[in-house]
Amino acid sequence: MVLVVEKYGGTSVGSVERINAVAERVAASHQKGERLVVVLSAMSGETNRLIALANEIDPQASSREMDVLVSTGEQVTIALLAMALQKRGIEARSYTGGQVQILTDSVHSKARILDIDAARVRKDLEQGRVVVVAGFQGVDKDGNITTLGRGGSDTTAVAMAAALQAEECRIFTDVDGVYTTDPRIVPEARRLDRITVEEMLELASQGAKVLQTRSVEFAGKYRVPLRVLSSFEDGPGTLITHEVSDMEQPLISGIAYNRDEAKLTIRGVPDQPGVASQIFGPLSDAHLNIDMIIQNVAQDGTTDLTFTVNRGEYPQAKKLLVEIAGQLNAREVVGDDTLAKIAIVGVGMRSHSGVAAKMFSTLAAEGINIELISTSEIKISIGVNDKYLELAVRALHKAFDLQEKATEERLEGAKDD
Amino acid sequence: MVLVVEKYGGTSVGSVERINAVAERVAASHQKGERLVVVLSAMSGETNRLIALANEIDPQASSREMDVLVSTGEQVTIALLAMALQKRGIEARSYTGGQVQILTDSVHSKARILDIDAARVRKDLEQGRVVVVAGFQGVDKDGNITTLGRGGSDTTAVAMAAALQAEECRIFTDVDGVYTTDPRIVPEARRLDRITVEEMLELASQGAKVLQTRSVEFAGKYRVPLRVLSSFEDGPGTLITHEVSDMEQPLISGIAYNRDEAKLTIRGVPDQPGVASQIFGPLSDAHLNIDMIIQNVAQDGTTDLTFTVNRGEYPQAKKLLVEIAGQLNAREVVGDDTLAKIAIVGVGMRSHSGVAAKMFSTLAAEGINIELISTSEIKISIGVNDKYLELAVRALHKAFDLQEKATEERLEGAKDD
Repeated sequence: MVLVVEKYGGTSVGSVERINAVAERVAASHQKGERLVVVLSAMSGETNRLIALANEIDPQASSREMDVLVSTGEQVTIALLAMALQKRGIEARSYTGGQVQILTDSVHSKARILDIDAARVRKDLEQGRVVVVAGFQGVDKDGNITTLGRGGSDTTAVAMAAALQAEECRIFTDVDGVYTTDPRIVPEARRLDRITVEEMLELASQGAKVLQTRSVEFAGKYRVPLRVLSSFEDGPGTLITHEVSDMEQPLISGIAYNRDEAKLTIRGVPDQPGVASQIFGPLSDAHLNIDMIIQNVAQDGTTDLTFTVNRGEYPQAKKLLVEIAGQLNAREVVGDDTLAKIAIVGVGMRSHSGVAAKMFSTLAAEGINIELISTSEIKISIGVNDKYLELAVRALHKAFDLQEKATEERLEGAKDD
Repeated sequence: MVLVVEKYGGTSVGSVERINAVAERVAASHQKGERLVVVLSAMSGETNRLIALANEIDPQASSREMDVLVSTGEQVTIALLAMALQKRGIEARSYTGGQVQILTDSVHSKARILDIDAARVRKDLEQGRVVVVAGFQGVDKDGNITTLGRGGSDTTAVAMAAALQAEECRIFTDVDGVYTTDPRIVPEARRLDRITVEEMLELASQGAKVLQTRSVEFAGKYRVPLRVLSSFEDGPGTLITHEVSDMEQPLISGIAYNRDEAKLTIRGVPDQPGVASQIFGPLSDAHLNIDMIIQNVAQDGTTDLTFTVNRGEYPQAKKLLVEIAGQLNAREVVGDDTLAKIAIVGVGMRSHSGVAAKMFSTLAAEGINIELISTSEIKISIGVNDKYLELAVRALHKAFDLQEKATEERLEGAKDD
């Protein structure tokens, strides 16, 4: 008998009507003979309502008590879904994170899962029950309630799937899968039937926010097959997997972008050991997130360093960098806060050297100037002026042939799942 | 160092403003050097909101899942109060019923407390922390969340006080104590400084709903001194105690009443063994609450039986009694649904035979006909037509001299506490 973990997010359980719809979906899987563990988030808006209550009392409320407070959100939804399943004649039982139990460290509000004692869940499953588990929460070794941080329900689902050695972990969300790129920019964007964990991580880090990065990492580490699919419509979704079949693997899988970027360049920095840490140390201390870093080849004993920051942090980063430049006797600091980042991602590019060349020539043909380039084994990121963003993404999507396949191929893809 | 359990009900924690007010009150007790355990109900309205959600899904939802659902109400308030205390510089920790832990049987929605493992709470108290405990909830031996039923937070507080051998259990509510009778009927009604557990139980069973009967029984059983006081204004409240000082004890302590009563009489019942159970068995099976039962002296081999029921259950009870009368060949069934019940309660009446006589003569002087009489060691209950209710209560209150004492006496009473 197949064991599956299904996870439904906040909008999927946002109302009694939606909870009933989830119950129908779970009931259908149950009737197919699947053993099911269902992980739920709080009803959408509920966590924010609770946080607002806490803020009224103390905006600096202790994270231990915040966890006691916000963990009630999922507890409400698990009870309601268990009721909705029971109403449909399905035996169901709800469990909080503490009951399962999901053991975490004691870092309140961003705890990490250490262990899951799934014996109780297994016993219920053996008796034909559907087990409904509160996502996002656990307990530490002293029995204190902890939460995993925003989006932690995905992580709970993957961890439950790992602990139970489930065949699959299905993440139901408000999109029907992972796309080659954002369909709002490229209407021809295609849902991917499969994507590798590595690719998914690269796409997620570039702003494709279908899944929490942490849950994908977890799935990768414990080799849990992860499927993203829509809770609003039927469909196979996208399978995030470990097995790479080179035969089928396309050159690149998707294009991610991030619009709100900025770049800063410090010029005429002494080209000597320790300089990089003198620059990036203070930036890190100020909790500024640095992304792409490019160092030019040194000339005359000095070099230039360029990096990108989130646009919202640009003024602060620039001010700090000017101070650092003074200390290092650097020549100047220049910046630009109209940057957009575009990344093409694909495990297929490992074995194809022509990907970068094709990317650059495609953009050149559109007259788009590339301001930064950074590459990794399965990703090429570039920075361009943000006014070119849509044009660039569309051109690349077409150049790499990512658009919707012919009907026959799509049907075959669907049959796979 | 004095250890005290304080309990605040739903209206006392009904808003952030009210929770802050409770924090001020708790902080004051803490500053006086008391070690404090605070037991809380859900914010008023919250439990009903949750029940309404469940009803939308399934009005017959399982009680196990109802308990998972509604127990979130107290979990929210304990976190918020802990935050409010921490904001005031007081170390505080919240615990759910399961965390404390409060072990109950597995009768969901009306579980009974079996044991409390207060080791964790004691450790916190020793470290100077205020411990905030969710009322109304516990866990069974398998770790399932249970609730104690409506008003169960009072019981949690008393049970915590018993487990910790607290000096006192203070129940903060929206009235400032137990009164000689309902001040809405008798403006001269006086707050009692003390009352015995037995008296409190008799008053509570007669509709004086200051405390849940169960928590008073619990306090009696474990000899926990219980004090009822207002969370809205300062004052000594009423101490519910075990020590009876005959010297001070007044003849009667209070007058309770219940307006919504009805009586039913079955006439000409064969006066033989087993008849009472043939009458009351079916009534009990139909979950009808029978209160006073009076059997007349038999004449000619038959007797009459009269009993009272809640007015809302009168039609159903009458219909059933007519059927029973047919089976027993009883003469007739008569009823009256305009009954009110009045009870005078006092441990002092044990040693004074004249109480009943005084009660009856007082009512006679007002021209009030007594329709039923039932007595116990510390209580005399009567039934009268409900139109006489206020007149009867006022007359009895005056006859037994229960009105506000002179100022000196009151001050002395207050000093006691």
